[in-house]
Amino acid sequence: MKIIPKSLSKLIESFEKLPGIGPKTAGRLAFYLLHVPQNELNMFSDNIKNLKIATKFCSLCGNIGETDPCSVCEDVSRDHSFVCVVEQPLDVVSIEKTGAYKGVYHVLYGAINPLQNIGPDEIRIAELMKRIFGGTIHEILLATNPTMEGEATAMYIKREIQNAIRQLADKSQNSIRITRLAHGLPVGGDIEYADEVTLSRAFEGRREY
Amino acid sequence: MKIIPKSLSKLIESFEKLPGIGPKTAGRLAFYLLHVPQNELNMFSDNIKNLKIATKFCSLCGNIGETDPCSVCEDVSRDHSFVCVVEQPLDVVSIEKTGAYKGVYHVLYGAINPLQNIGPDEIRIAELMKRIFGGTIHEILLATNPTMEGEATAMYIKREIQNAIRQLADKSQNSIRITRLAHGLPVGGDIEYADEVTLSRAFEGRREY
Repeated sequence: MKIIPKSLSKLIESFEKLPGIGPKTAGRLAFYLLHVPQNELNMFSDNIKNLKIATKFCSLCGNIGETDPCSVCEDVSRDHSFVCVVEQPLDVVSIEKTGAYKGVYHVLYGAINPLQNIGPDEIRIAELMKRIFGGTIHEILLATNPTMEGEATAMYIKREIQNAIRQLADKSQNSIRITRLAHGLPVGGDIEYADEVTLSRAFEGRREY
Repeated sequence: MKIIPKSLSKLIESFEKLPGIGPKTAGRLAFYLLHVPQNELNMFSDNIKNLKIATKFCSLCGNIGETDPCSVCEDVSRDHSFVCVVEQPLDVVSIEKTGAYKGVYHVLYGAINPLQNIGPDEIRIAELMKRIFGGTIHEILLATNPTMEGEATAMYIKREIQNAIRQLADKSQNSIRITRLAHGLPVGGDIEYADEVTLSRAFEGRREY
């Protein structure tokens, strides 16, 4: 006997496809929505349907925005010679929240991950190289995640840029600075609970005080 | 400057309203859906919109089904004199999956919780009492959760039934058996990691072997 109504099990299936949501959570979410008024369900439903209609992919940085080019790339008050390379659009949101960065972005949409068959050609590295050697860029900040994949990606991009500079007859591009976000103790963190790698990076990166 | 497009932030808001989903997870889910094909988004969207249209509330047990009465209450092969009282429709699903129970259900939609202003009148206890004294019920299995609220609810229902039986002139109802799910070690569990209350309940409830 089928105990779960079809419309409910279909919604559970939809929820299960989302990342980090297993069968138990999917069931809990679907059953929760049964108690939500129909007009809120309609709103939720419309928000999903219209998600991609009102969003545009920025042809310059690859970020998601309402316009193309996006609001960051269009902003003349920002430093367009300073490019921050991130893995995902959500990273842009996190960095923008700090308000500390006034340059522009380049979204890779992933990191090099041989185990998942993601090589340098699968992410937007070629577009980055075009941008670097097509314009006047002075600094590339590699803000990929401090994971194995993110580090490998940062390393790969650094070498690509250096190789390209070496091959260029025009040495004017030589002045590109390649940087990486600082590693160290998180603010509010506890030295006691810091892992060894982070702690040793914090020692290496110690600063005058 | 608005860094997140409006359609995206609206969907993030919708996700944030779901139980157990915070701002970070909501953002992650919404950004994930940007990479999902539009036809899958439409399907997800329709599943939400149609959720309540194709589901019915069973007027007998209060469970969610495709028909009223639901498939369990309609099934003549089940024991209609044996009622299992649960807090939520999801509990019915879990119990049905075991295949061990052949009676019918009564869904309370919550448990007594004074801190959240949920008293006996807010959950479907009155409907349960009507069912008990309107029909021929031989056993009431109180399968509320083994939490403070669930225990309080089970205790309250037990007393209500006993009081009602005492007041009835007709003593034929005296034979209602009130039971509760067994407490003890979970199968596959480890005595070493069992909490004290569970372990002492396992001692109390020990059985001939």
